[in-house]
Amino acid sequence: MSSEQKELTQTPLLKIWVPWMSSSLSQRRGSSRPQFTNCPTMIVMVGLPARGKTYISKKLTRYLNWIGVPTQVFNLGQYRREVVQTYKNYEFFRPDNEEAMKIRRCLMLPIPQGREEGSSSVLQRRRATRQVFFIESICDDPEIIEANIMQVKLSSPDYENYDKEEALVDFLNRIDCYKMSYVSLDEEKDRHLSFIKIFNVGSRYLVNRVQDHIQSRIVYYLMNIHVTPRSIYLSRHGESELNLLGRIGGDSGLSSQGQKYARALSEFIRGQSIKDLKVWTSHMRRTIQTAEALGVPYEQWKALNEIDAGVCEEMTYEEIQATHPEEFALRDQDKYRYRYPKGESYEDLVHRLEPVIMELERQENVLVICHQAVMRCLLAYFLDKSADDLPYLKCPLHTVLKLTPLAYGCKVESFYLNIQAVNTHRDKPTNVNVARKPEEALRTVPEHL
Amino acid sequence: MSSEQKELTQTPLLKIWVPWMSSSLSQRRGSSRPQFTNCPTMIVMVGLPARGKTYISKKLTRYLNWIGVPTQVFNLGQYRREVVQTYKNYEFFRPDNEEAMKIRRCLMLPIPQGREEGSSSVLQRRRATRQVFFIESICDDPEIIEANIMQVKLSSPDYENYDKEEALVDFLNRIDCYKMSYVSLDEEKDRHLSFIKIFNVGSRYLVNRVQDHIQSRIVYYLMNIHVTPRSIYLSRHGESELNLLGRIGGDSGLSSQGQKYARALSEFIRGQSIKDLKVWTSHMRRTIQTAEALGVPYEQWKALNEIDAGVCEEMTYEEIQATHPEEFALRDQDKYRYRYPKGESYEDLVHRLEPVIMELERQENVLVICHQAVMRCLLAYFLDKSADDLPYLKCPLHTVLKLTPLAYGCKVESFYLNIQAVNTHRDKPTNVNVARKPEEALRTVPEHL
Repeated sequence: MSSEQKELTQTPLLKIWVPWMSSSLSQRRGSSRPQFTNCPTMIVMVGLPARGKTYISKKLTRYLNWIGVPTQVFNLGQYRREVVQTYKNYEFFRPDNEEAMKIRRCLMLPIPQGREEGSSSVLQRRRATRQVFFIESICDDPEIIEANIMQVKLSSPDYENYDKEEALVDFLNRIDCYKMSYVSLDEEKDRHLSFIKIFNVGSRYLVNRVQDHIQSRIVYYLMNIHVTPRSIYLSRHGESELNLLGRIGGDSGLSSQGQKYARALSEFIRGQSIKDLKVWTSHMRRTIQTAEALGVPYEQWKALNEIDAGVCEEMTYEEIQATHPEEFALRDQDKYRYRYPKGESYEDLVHRLEPVIMELERQENVLVICHQAVMRCLLAYFLDKSADDLPYLKCPLHTVLKLTPLAYGCKVESFYLNIQAVNTHRDKPTNVNVARKPEEALRTVPEHL
Repeated sequence: MSSEQKELTQTPLLKIWVPWMSSSLSQRRGSSRPQFTNCPTMIVMVGLPARGKTYISKKLTRYLNWIGVPTQVFNLGQYRREVVQTYKNYEFFRPDNEEAMKIRRCLMLPIPQGREEGSSSVLQRRRATRQVFFIESICDDPEIIEANIMQVKLSSPDYENYDKEEALVDFLNRIDCYKMSYVSLDEEKDRHLSFIKIFNVGSRYLVNRVQDHIQSRIVYYLMNIHVTPRSIYLSRHGESELNLLGRIGGDSGLSSQGQKYARALSEFIRGQSIKDLKVWTSHMRRTIQTAEALGVPYEQWKALNEIDAGVCEEMTYEEIQATHPEEFALRDQDKYRYRYPKGESYEDLVHRLEPVIMELERQENVLVICHQAVMRCLLAYFLDKSADDLPYLKCPLHTVLKLTPLAYGCKVESFYLNIQAVNTHRDKPTNVNVARKPEEALRTVPEHL
């Protein structure tokens, strides 16, 4: 190797090839993933009260965090409640209430300028800075507005001491106060701004001057979500032959308990009498065998395949510890970002699953028959779990999770179908040091044959 | 295995698990990929002449075919030229020209109803059927319109016997004829239709009633393309140690010839003096080593990694023939759809590369340092090559392809940087039968150490 040509070395955790340097890695020219944002994005929600601004910002924030764009919500309404502790009535929002207007202007102060690289923030009111993207929600259907008020506004701390009818009337008055000074984004006058206007919960969109990758992704996401009531059912395949042996990965068939589960799942799903249920599986034998027992059509997604454990495929944890003790410890140190040699990380899996999430958002009732690591990633998206918690979410075999979107979150119901199966969950051990003893590394390995 | 539980068997080509059946596979409940369309889509282009309808429909058709949605363009202008063989002048298009109007109405007859499943078609004029998506291009910038006329309209067969100035005047008159009866899609009156209106080459979009996955993908694609002049440079990594040995896949470093290429590429790129060039690599050592020689920042995409040859990774073709002769023959039978055991197919690769293509569409000047199979997939997208041709496209080592979008297509310039390298291209052999002799299977294998 000539002196000009730098040697490359693979980083232990991410398995990224980098030039060998005795000093730090900070001088690296390569970035280990595509750089989509040059500067942080400030996403500003625009809209009269009860137009779904909170709903959209929470949902979008959850999505952006999940795909790896750190995002935070700043809700001026919450700041206002901290400053003005007792809410009397809508008169606070009258444009001629000068004292209140002064207070409301001050509420913008705590909003950060968002200088963190690759980050974005969702605001609950309009505000101009540099890389700004506006999302305006417009709704002129009184039924939708009233339903929204009933669903999320009446439970606001503002209306603790109100009865339902009073609160509704006050809130409608509050909307009228805003209407007096509300200015909608204008196709012509605001043509230099980057924005999306959403009309009547997504029947129409006006999209103006999308500036970069992130804004384009945001627009695509907003155009794919819907609010039709539905449920998503998540299940792992039935217990597999390799599960029984405590071996990870592979492409084995169902054990006899696993076959029982497939039949129990079929019965459970029939019992739920779900309208137009779609069934999705991975390309792996154990999910397809599970789906076959349902006796209904299903679709196979390669993207739903289990995490690729690379050189550790089909090994037991004991074997991994014996042959790759350092790898085993590194995985315990940062399970989300750790990549198996010649395999994948949870982070890779999230990127692979992004199109699945997008299509899940588009669909109504769906049963996803998948795998432990895949189910953890999907669940983290719906339940807004952090990258640290994601790889340790409990997704036991023979248990269906029913997720039902609800106001700003998701209701979770867990159904254990009463067919015994091995435990495949390994908790993070206390000692994650590469120098730990084998018994410390193996302390949390679940029992197996 | 109980009698209720069906055995599964893996299909030889696609490696899909299906229930074992003595009869046909047509009764399968599982579909080997997600079913995005229930019924075919008719995409109808709307817009005055010289608004980019042909450009958009050709480009969109190329994209849809590449992602696996069979799509065809039907251009009424071409039909008209077949029927009315000599074009005189714009008066043919006057709304009061009754005879011409009759002819023009008949032109719609050959348009198929699009009953093929999963297919879509792009039309050059408006027409109503069931699953219809309208794309209207609106432009009120006279400079853009004139530039478009100069670039693509004057070379039309209509103006064979015209000089440039005459043709421009006639074409502007033709536009005026259309304007007399042109009706734009209306937010209110057409609110039941599914459509996207594109304003001034993408500065603004109005999107109405997106109905399904395909329409959503079309909208996302249209919102990401641009017409700013730029070039895309495609190159494979420099020759690798495994290339020298005739071994596929793996993650080896560059050979000494490969290192020379990296330096030659650096010089070549400097010589091109490209504005704001972005450099992308895969996660593999050989592309990163090649990029390091450039001395500029670069971004690593896992999605650009070489096709995963599964159990055949790091084998020579001779070894694959010796150990997996049936696999080797199946690959020759349908190289695009063939999936390596525990690996990928070219078709899988195209799906993995879709986000890369989308980001390439968004970007301006980019150098992509990738791999043979990956480069074939990217090239097929830009040059509109079929799935059959794609896996045999010639992408030799140490050769840069410069792609420059041009009117309706792409100019390709090939630069061999004069650094010798092994040949890695294996043509399709004449005999693809599983019963062929080894020497027949190996006839087209390129020479190696």
